[in-house]
Amino acid sequence: MIELYDLCLKDDLRISPYCWRTKAVLTHKNLPFTTIPVSFTEKDKLAFSGQDRVPVIKDNGTVVNDSWAIAKYLEEKYPEPKLFPTLGIRESCRFFNLFVDNTVHGALIRVFVNDIFAHTLEKDRAYFRADREKRFGMTLEQLAAQRDANRPQMQEVLNQLEATLAGQDYFYGQFTYADLCLFGTFKWVTSVSNEPFLDQTPHVRAWWERMQKQLGL
Amino acid sequence: MIELYDLCLKDDLRISPYCWRTKAVLTHKNLPFTTIPVSFTEKDKLAFSGQDRVPVIKDNGTVVNDSWAIAKYLEEKYPEPKLFPTLGIRESCRFFNLFVDNTVHGALIRVFVNDIFAHTLEKDRAYFRADREKRFGMTLEQLAAQRDANRPQMQEVLNQLEATLAGQDYFYGQFTYADLCLFGTFKWVTSVSNEPFLDQTPHVRAWWERMQKQLGL
Repeated sequence: MIELYDLCLKDDLRISPYCWRTKAVLTHKNLPFTTIPVSFTEKDKLAFSGQDRVPVIKDNGTVVNDSWAIAKYLEEKYPEPKLFPTLGIRESCRFFNLFVDNTVHGALIRVFVNDIFAHTLEKDRAYFRADREKRFGMTLEQLAAQRDANRPQMQEVLNQLEATLAGQDYFYGQFTYADLCLFGTFKWVTSVSNEPFLDQTPHVRAWWERMQKQLGL
Repeated sequence: MIELYDLCLKDDLRISPYCWRTKAVLTHKNLPFTTIPVSFTEKDKLAFSGQDRVPVIKDNGTVVNDSWAIAKYLEEKYPEPKLFPTLGIRESCRFFNLFVDNTVHGALIRVFVNDIFAHTLEKDRAYFRADREKRFGMTLEQLAAQRDANRPQMQEVLNQLEATLAGQDYFYGQFTYADLCLFGTFKWVTSVSNEPFLDQTPHVRAWWERMQKQLGL
C-alpha cells in the first residue's frame, strides 16, 4: 500500500492542494493508499525524503516528493488509467500545473488565507502566521481587511478558466492531469471556506461538481 | 494570396500581438500573404467582416476574424506544417492562448502602454488615450508614473514562463501554436520598446531568439 505524507490542520482537516493532487491521481488510478498526517511544523517527519515539503509518497521503498514528480512517477509505474493520454500532453500539462501554482493560487490565497489560518492547529499558528506574513509583507489582519478588495483579481482568474471550459468538458478537451491540478486547488479552498466563489462561473462550477463525482473525493 | 488586415501605428509600424500571431502562422505554413494596414480608428475598413477588430483574413473570398479562429481555419485548410501536431494539442493550446491574452498581456501592458502610445498615429491618439484610460481607470500619465511599480508583476509572469521552459525547447515540449501565441506578444513589446525585459529569464530569451530565427520574422 502506498503511503502519502499529507498536510494536516485542526480536527484532522486535510487541505494541501498539492497533496490533493496526489490523492486525486492515486484515486484516478485506483491505487490503494494510506496517509500519514504532517502538521505545518512537523517537518522532521519528512526528513527521510531529504527535504521538508509535502506531498511525499513511499511506494514499496521508493520515495518520491513533489506533486509533479509523483504524477510522472505514478504514470510510468502504473500507466492505466492515464494522466497524460496522448503524445505531448504531459508537457502541456506541465504548463497548466505551473499556471495553477502561480496564477490561480496567487489570486485565491489572498482571499482565503484567513480561512486556512482559522483551521490551523494551535501549535502551528505561530509558524503559519510568521511564514505567511513574511510572504505577503503584511499581517493576517491586514490581509483580512483586503479580502473584498482582492476578490476581483480572483474573479478575473476564474473568468479565464470559465472561458477555457466554454464548449468542452475538461480543460484540455479530454480528461488529463490538468483537471486534477485544479481539482486539488478547489479541495484546498472548499476544505476551509464556504465562500460561494464559483457563483459567477457556471461552467467551472459544473466541471467541479463533475470532477468530485468522477473521483468520489 | 491571403489578405491580412493588420493594425498600423506611426511610420507603418505593426504591433498587434494578435496580428503577429496570424503572421507567424502564415509564415510557419509558408503561405504567401499581403497586409492591409488599419489604424486604431479605421474600423470602417473592417465592416465587411461583420465586426471591428483585427486580425481579419480574406482567403479567396473566405473571411475569418479572431486570431484563434484564423489559426483553426488555416490548420484545417492548410494542414502542413502543423500548428497542433498531436491529438488533443489544439485544446491544450487554447488554454495557453487564453493565458497569454489575459495573464501575460495584463502584466505587460501596464509596463509598455506608454511606449505604444508614443508610436500611435496622430489621428488615433485621442481614441487610444480614451480607450486605454477607461480600461485602466487612470490616465496614461498615471500609468507612466507606475511603470517601475508594475515591473515586479511582469517579472513574476516572465518567471513563470521561464520555469516552464527549463529543460525544454518549446512551451509544450514540441513546437505548437502556443509558441506562436507568445511570439506575437513579444513582437508587440519589442516593436515599440527597447526595455531589456528578458534579462532575468535566460531560457525565455533563448527561446525568443530561436523563434525569431525559425520564423525569420
